[in-house]
Amino acid sequence: MLKETLIETYTLGLDYGTESGRALLVRVSDGAEVATAVYPYKDGVLDRALPDGTPLPPDWALQNPDDYLDVLKNAVPAVLKESGVAPDAVVGVGIDFTSCTMLPTLRDGTPLCRLGDLRGNPHAWVKLWKHHAAQPQADRINEVARARGEPWLGRYGGKISSEWFFSKALQILEEAPEVYARAERLIEAADWLVWQLTGVETRSACTAGYKAMVQDGSFPSPEYFAALHPDFRDVVDEKMSRELLPLGAKAGGLSEAAAAWTGLKPGTPVAVANVDAHVTVPATGHVAPGTLVMIMGTSTCHVLVGESLHEVEGMCGVVEGGVVPGAYGYEAGQSGVGDLFAWLVKRLAPPEVHDAARAEGVSVHEVLTREAARQRPGESGLLALDWLNGNRSVLVDAELSGLIVGLTLATTPAELYRALLEATAYGTRMIVEAFRGAQVPVTRLVAAGGLPSKNPLLMQIYADVLNQEVYLIRSEQGPALGAAMHAAVAAGVYPDIAAAAAKMGGLSETVYRPVPENAAVYERLYADYRVLHDLFGRSGADEPGGVMKRLRSLRREARRAG
Amino acid sequence: MLKETLIETYTLGLDYGTESGRALLVRVSDGAEVATAVYPYKDGVLDRALPDGTPLPPDWALQNPDDYLDVLKNAVPAVLKESGVAPDAVVGVGIDFTSCTMLPTLRDGTPLCRLGDLRGNPHAWVKLWKHHAAQPQADRINEVARARGEPWLGRYGGKISSEWFFSKALQILEEAPEVYARAERLIEAADWLVWQLTGVETRSACTAGYKAMVQDGSFPSPEYFAALHPDFRDVVDEKMSRELLPLGAKAGGLSEAAAAWTGLKPGTPVAVANVDAHVTVPATGHVAPGTLVMIMGTSTCHVLVGESLHEVEGMCGVVEGGVVPGAYGYEAGQSGVGDLFAWLVKRLAPPEVHDAARAEGVSVHEVLTREAARQRPGESGLLALDWLNGNRSVLVDAELSGLIVGLTLATTPAELYRALLEATAYGTRMIVEAFRGAQVPVTRLVAAGGLPSKNPLLMQIYADVLNQEVYLIRSEQGPALGAAMHAAVAAGVYPDIAAAAAKMGGLSETVYRPVPENAAVYERLYADYRVLHDLFGRSGADEPGGVMKRLRSLRREARRAG
Repeated sequence: MLKETLIETYTLGLDYGTESGRALLVRVSDGAEVATAVYPYKDGVLDRALPDGTPLPPDWALQNPDDYLDVLKNAVPAVLKESGVAPDAVVGVGIDFTSCTMLPTLRDGTPLCRLGDLRGNPHAWVKLWKHHAAQPQADRINEVARARGEPWLGRYGGKISSEWFFSKALQILEEAPEVYARAERLIEAADWLVWQLTGVETRSACTAGYKAMVQDGSFPSPEYFAALHPDFRDVVDEKMSRELLPLGAKAGGLSEAAAAWTGLKPGTPVAVANVDAHVTVPATGHVAPGTLVMIMGTSTCHVLVGESLHEVEGMCGVVEGGVVPGAYGYEAGQSGVGDLFAWLVKRLAPPEVHDAARAEGVSVHEVLTREAARQRPGESGLLALDWLNGNRSVLVDAELSGLIVGLTLATTPAELYRALLEATAYGTRMIVEAFRGAQVPVTRLVAAGGLPSKNPLLMQIYADVLNQEVYLIRSEQGPALGAAMHAAVAAGVYPDIAAAAAKMGGLSETVYRPVPENAAVYERLYADYRVLHDLFGRSGADEPGGVMKRLRSLRREARRAG
Repeated sequence: MLKETLIETYTLGLDYGTESGRALLVRVSDGAEVATAVYPYKDGVLDRALPDGTPLPPDWALQNPDDYLDVLKNAVPAVLKESGVAPDAVVGVGIDFTSCTMLPTLRDGTPLCRLGDLRGNPHAWVKLWKHHAAQPQADRINEVARARGEPWLGRYGGKISSEWFFSKALQILEEAPEVYARAERLIEAADWLVWQLTGVETRSACTAGYKAMVQDGSFPSPEYFAALHPDFRDVVDEKMSRELLPLGAKAGGLSEAAAAWTGLKPGTPVAVANVDAHVTVPATGHVAPGTLVMIMGTSTCHVLVGESLHEVEGMCGVVEGGVVPGAYGYEAGQSGVGDLFAWLVKRLAPPEVHDAARAEGVSVHEVLTREAARQRPGESGLLALDWLNGNRSVLVDAELSGLIVGLTLATTPAELYRALLEATAYGTRMIVEAFRGAQVPVTRLVAAGGLPSKNPLLMQIYADVLNQEVYLIRSEQGPALGAAMHAAVAAGVYPDIAAAAAKMGGLSETVYRPVPENAAVYERLYADYRVLHDLFGRSGADEPGGVMKRLRSLRREARRAG
């Protein structure tokens, strides 16, 4: 036993979120989380102005790449100090990041926004995942792909998002050709950070596959890019790396500079970059096909490993090796989940609810959840469509909007709250059924992310609506743990991620099981959710059911006129 | 001039609302309102329990008839005192009432709820207009009428309401046969009050026509009533008066007892009872065909005089002499208007809105209205169906519910507030178009009731949505003024209500005119309102669009199970 203790080793998982970065130190033998620290980004999300005051148009969301380095310089030393673990005992570093978050740099990795003459140009900064101003580019990317019959389009549910790599890259070219010209590299922030850690530019197969349309080892063709814009023809060859590394591979060893920032040993293996959602899968302990991991927070990302390749309506993407090398990683998503509940709390919770929360020292969410938990399924007479932030899967339409039906003069905020909880469960069921309908088995549901542990009612509703057990991930830091597991693979401690998952990941003992009476009621409510889903979601703007699309056009016109 | 002053005379209008009664003393020469007083009903609306604590089931709403007499004893002396007008100078009394509000009494008019052994029986009390527990009876009334092809059914838009006279009477018979047996009279509260004032039982042609299915001078046949319940066959002959008096007729002279209560002179002419909505029409000064008067408060009642008889889809009723003797009075309605805005304020206005209202010393409605007034039509992207309290016209379906579409994470309470204002305007436009489509001209729109003067934005939205001028009634006490005008006719001061209207009624100088740009946007939004209206409102429960109906069934089941 003494000997075992002596050789105990650790890996570091770095999880880069929207507002902050987290460092998590994990014991490689069993996944025990020994220390964690969070460091918020000084500039946060730049969605109104650059730090110098340069105003940003609507739908923009930028970040300062130096904030990412500050996480290395602060959170990593903090966990080392807190844990008392010696740098020698840290055998690997793994990172995960929001995606697609991307930036233009010089050939040596210097972000263009660091250059004096470009610092005031918004296009020189990091475009955060939720930068939505590249929609015109995304529209053309889709149009041209459809017109040319590009074979990769079906792998993304038939639609490329405005959030993804080439939408953002094309926006730079079209709106700021001078920035595009100066950009010697266009790169995912995840890969850029690994470059900063190792001094070596690498490209993760995961981000390349899900966000940069790499399929069967290839990017789209120069002819396709040229059809988007003549100067875009050679974007890959000129500004990107074609050498993709699989997840779990070692990108390089920690550079002297990075060692100085972090307090870790130079040469420590650094794993290829990963994405926050996908990296969570092994943290559940289950990387075998059939387990759908729902990473639930402000939005939900669904990640599923499959044995074979199928095209599923409206999924975000399927990528070979996108989650686990050697298998197909499927991704789908709901663009608003926790955000919906937060909207109700922020906008529509009356004073008495706030007062009750204050008096009891709990959150408004807790007050509404408790009241919602007293309602029986169907009792409120409400049914909602969860599209307040658009629909990511199955319809892939950001122009769709939320709907609530069944309102009466007696409808309460807690009833609306529950209706929104339920709506997100119906949305997940649509996705699960889309997978199953396309012959991709879903045999187990695992909830991860920040939401599940906060709201047991939500989890019970998911179990009832999906009529299937819902398991919970054990770790509260799924992404950071997953990153640490990939670090352990990159360090050679485990032969592959499945082995690491078996030892380091796992499920909580809490399982939510469907209650048959509830499931029976939800079966009926879900049938009506589908009616509304298909009517409002699938009708064209010129068909009667295209109400949401017409309202959105009208809104656009009214705002333009104002 | 001195001579003129010496012979100045007055009439008294008594307006019985849901929570209180109002007395208004009016100069007959010009309609000047010289004094008014309100007296609240001590027992208010009994919707949870009788005064002795006997609990009431859901959907019940009762009143205590003695509260109506207290208005006579308090509000009438108060206006005499305040005005200094001598009882001699008061030449007539007119009343209007909510309807159908009805009660069972002995042959001498004693309400059954005054009898010791029946006081604890809810069925012995006044059933207020908004008592909705007679829906099963109304359903059967409609079914049997349809099956028998009753000719009067079309005059009520094809549907009799649970609020109406025979629905409530049949409920008494079926649920409390002992009360029914003791009831020597079943009578509208309006007519009962006139009886209390005069000592003579009379029956208003207005309430009989709109609420008791009297058409072309006849009640439904005994055979029809027998088909509802064998003991119901002779309900009219046994318990009701068949002698209908026209509006503006004199019901009798003030009894000694009533004179003592009120301080008025015995023998003062008392007009036949009227209904609050219908009596408002002459108060606008316009009783000629084509003027649609919208009495807007918690709900809206639309009253329109027409020259000829047409059947209009989903109207509440058409009654010859129902508004003005010698013409057809059409009634339609929206079951929730001000109530919708109040719902949002009560249930979904967040603390900052309440705080702003408090800081400025204005109502929450004013804060939301001001913010809503800054929005351009279409700008919020929202569209609502105004059915939170069901649909009275055109669909006549209490099971329908409210719907809001176009929600986003940026949707504000003020945007929802405006969407509800707009929804009620669309609902009114549906009604106006139903009239026009049935060849009943609507040439002028006049708004009355409590809401129009409170909310100019609402009125502008109505003008824009209907694309037509909206006029306002001059008086703030339209019903009481209308009652006083009928008193003047009953007293013989004017030969008919048209003459009284010309002198005593009138419009405000404020006119809301449509803004062409707004009207153009609302034309498009209204087209989508119609899409949703027809889809959710006209689909059967087994059709895809029957979502609201299925949700209501499910709600009923869930509540029953609870």
